[in-house]
Amino acid sequence: MLEDDRVDSVFEVLADPTRRRVVRLLAERPWPAGELARAAGTSAPVISRHLRILLAAGVVADERVPDDARLRVFRLRREPLVALQAWLDQVKAQWDEQLGAFKRHVEREGQ
Amino acid sequence: MLEDDRVDSVFEVLADPTRRRVVRLLAERPWPAGELARAAGTSAPVISRHLRILLAAGVVADERVPDDARLRVFRLRREPLVALQAWLDQVKAQWDEQLGAFKRHVEREGQ
Repeated sequence: MLEDDRVDSVFEVLADPTRRRVVRLLAERPWPAGELARAAGTSAPVISRHLRILLAAGVVADERVPDDARLRVFRLRREPLVALQAWLDQVKAQWDEQLGAFKRHVEREGQ
Repeated sequence: MLEDDRVDSVFEVLADPTRRRVVRLLAERPWPAGELARAAGTSAPVISRHLRILLAAGVVADERVPDDARLRVFRLRREPLVALQAWLDQVKAQWDEQLGAFKRHVEREGQ
């Protein structure tokens, strides 16, 4: 399957509940790390570690705020969600086909 | 969020590429473990270990074949796919809302 490595790291990264919470918060809006730590109910060092992992996996991106060079905001990237949905769509398509084949089989047997 | 533990184990289990391959094969049809090992390009002991993990996480189910008590077939369960899709839908809904709010902001500023 295409881009299996990418899906790999997305699943790995999202297996952690704190990182999933961060992803859900970033789906609402971009956040500075400090506010993100508070909103996720954890400490700044813990959030920093999770953000590094999310950055490395390409799940989030960071940007400097133009008016304040010291401030970084984190935002969610679209690609990992697309990759995850694509994987799920493939499984569901095969699954639907299986159910369809089973239904046709039952109908044939029932004649 | 509802059933976070369940989504947790689904992500964890699917972080492994061999287990994702097994899930995609089981989406096609139910398989006996031996055939599944061959189709996934791995050995019987490796597949057994992965199937135990998938069973424990509730991603697959196993059934005895009525005509042959020694034979077990494995099938995909629907629930984990539903849980995964529900999580993804929530993130996407928040994301769409964010994009909508951004668009409205730009339109207001542009007036």
